[in-house]
Amino acid sequence: MPIGEFELIARYLARPVGKQSGVQLGIGDDAAILDVRPDRKLVVAIDTIVEGVHFPANTTPADIGYRALAVNLSDLAAMGAEPAWFTLSLSLPQSEESWLEQFASGLFKLADAYDMELVGGDTVKGPLVITVQVAGWVEADRWLTRTGAKVGDAIVVSGVPGEAAGGLAALSREMASTESVEWLRERFLKPTPRVSLGRAIRTFATSAMDISDGLLTDLDKLCAGAYVGASVDIDWLPVSAALHDTFAAEECLDFTLAGGDDYELLFTVSPADLPRLANLPTPCAVIGEITAEQAVVCRKSNEIVEVKRRGYDHFREADR
Amino acid sequence: MPIGEFELIARYLARPVGKQSGVQLGIGDDAAILDVRPDRKLVVAIDTIVEGVHFPANTTPADIGYRALAVNLSDLAAMGAEPAWFTLSLSLPQSEESWLEQFASGLFKLADAYDMELVGGDTVKGPLVITVQVAGWVEADRWLTRTGAKVGDAIVVSGVPGEAAGGLAALSREMASTESVEWLRERFLKPTPRVSLGRAIRTFATSAMDISDGLLTDLDKLCAGAYVGASVDIDWLPVSAALHDTFAAEECLDFTLAGGDDYELLFTVSPADLPRLANLPTPCAVIGEITAEQAVVCRKSNEIVEVKRRGYDHFREADR
Repeated sequence: MPIGEFELIARYLARPVGKQSGVQLGIGDDAAILDVRPDRKLVVAIDTIVEGVHFPANTTPADIGYRALAVNLSDLAAMGAEPAWFTLSLSLPQSEESWLEQFASGLFKLADAYDMELVGGDTVKGPLVITVQVAGWVEADRWLTRTGAKVGDAIVVSGVPGEAAGGLAALSREMASTESVEWLRERFLKPTPRVSLGRAIRTFATSAMDISDGLLTDLDKLCAGAYVGASVDIDWLPVSAALHDTFAAEECLDFTLAGGDDYELLFTVSPADLPRLANLPTPCAVIGEITAEQAVVCRKSNEIVEVKRRGYDHFREADR
Repeated sequence: MPIGEFELIARYLARPVGKQSGVQLGIGDDAAILDVRPDRKLVVAIDTIVEGVHFPANTTPADIGYRALAVNLSDLAAMGAEPAWFTLSLSLPQSEESWLEQFASGLFKLADAYDMELVGGDTVKGPLVITVQVAGWVEADRWLTRTGAKVGDAIVVSGVPGEAAGGLAALSREMASTESVEWLRERFLKPTPRVSLGRAIRTFATSAMDISDGLLTDLDKLCAGAYVGASVDIDWLPVSAALHDTFAAEECLDFTLAGGDDYELLFTVSPADLPRLANLPTPCAVIGEITAEQAVVCRKSNEIVEVKRRGYDHFREADR
């Protein structure tokens, strides 16, 4: 009987962390924290993208290269870490120089922006599958995890969740190009890893993760890790002019609450720290509150609203 | 125009190493060396295996799990490093509990033998492609690389190269089971990473690498990195009773010189250090000598012998 991705990871791959090998935080968060030196912790994350699953088959090689690294940098951002180096595994159906040249240009454009170095790689013949592992550093005194949210904390999200899902829909429906459609497509194809934001909230956010599977799905995980619940106010969600320009209101809300691929940060802060949100490098919005009831609910004018989709799980959804 | 794997990596992905980020040895060797603390260096390697390319489609999940980690441990062995932790990316066509359970059992059996911990993972829906990144430690004073061979050094190989290729041939030709065939199949399916050997030769081997693409192909690379050549004496090669029991003499030689998947160590030692070979944890054989002529030749009774195949390059060979 098929099971979902998250249960699958938990059931067979997560094992108790043995302190002797210097593993401070193991599998299950956005990244692992490794205790390699007294002043700094090594933060590592691994992410794979597959053609036809994580990006459409007609995505340009440069955009694939960018994306492969961006989704990993987003994991470092969610830990509050500073990027350092990465390794790459490239499974390619055939070796085409022009493909590889463009792929490398997209990859290194982003790598150079963060002064990251590619330190190891493997190139094999196979279906188009790209895996990147990133490593970064975080100060030993404090880093971000998924599990620290407390009842009464404000729930905060960066940027405008849903635009990436709108961009993917525009791409797969082959919608005619407009300024809004172009904007949304770029948001899907070139997500901005929120590394500076992660660094900025490192010392005061009570928990953090990146949104890759959808706002509500990921909020579920953030709450589950802390044995709390959440109430999200629909009217507080950031509104995207480009989304509303392109899709009906109901679909816009669906993209915002359940669309994947945002790579925005979702985090919690205690009410006392709310003034700190004014000085962040990325615009952030308070969208709700952590509650004691262990469930995530959406409200509009204080009424509970039922929402259909809850985001993306590779092994649960038939297609994308 | 198609180019080979090694040129492909070199041309587009290898870039000059920037010392500021602590990268001591970057892309191009078996693993990267990272300067993270004064007394020890972090060693990282990444390797991917693809169904139908690196293992036959009917390989058991447990053997796939074992293999995914073993080929990476072999890279750590080639650097003289002590394994520490690893990350895993699993692209799977569907989530089957029994498949994953068996995969995990093969993977963790090997991981536990080396006291390694899985610290991060990603599970995605896609073709069967498994990527593992391993990290280990090596003392700051000395580690093994591919580039230190000197003219006059002895060329040494561990174990019995060619048995894995014989095992793969037995599997793909669906040969009837004999004791020898079973032995060869196990050599292919369960290569033994030579971690203890790598640790033992760390202080005196002048260069080292693991044999994954074939003895002569990999010796080419070892020589190219040091701007030297090699002379291999056919009569000095380790002889496998199981191979000769199963295949004709000519094919046995082909497997030994050009078959891939051995995951034995190929290394060089100065003549003064030859007595140290007696006390190694894995049987090793001297098979030739490093020469000044920048070419790899095979000899038999001092006559140069032409050999056909030179090993495996994913993007150069039409099939496997």
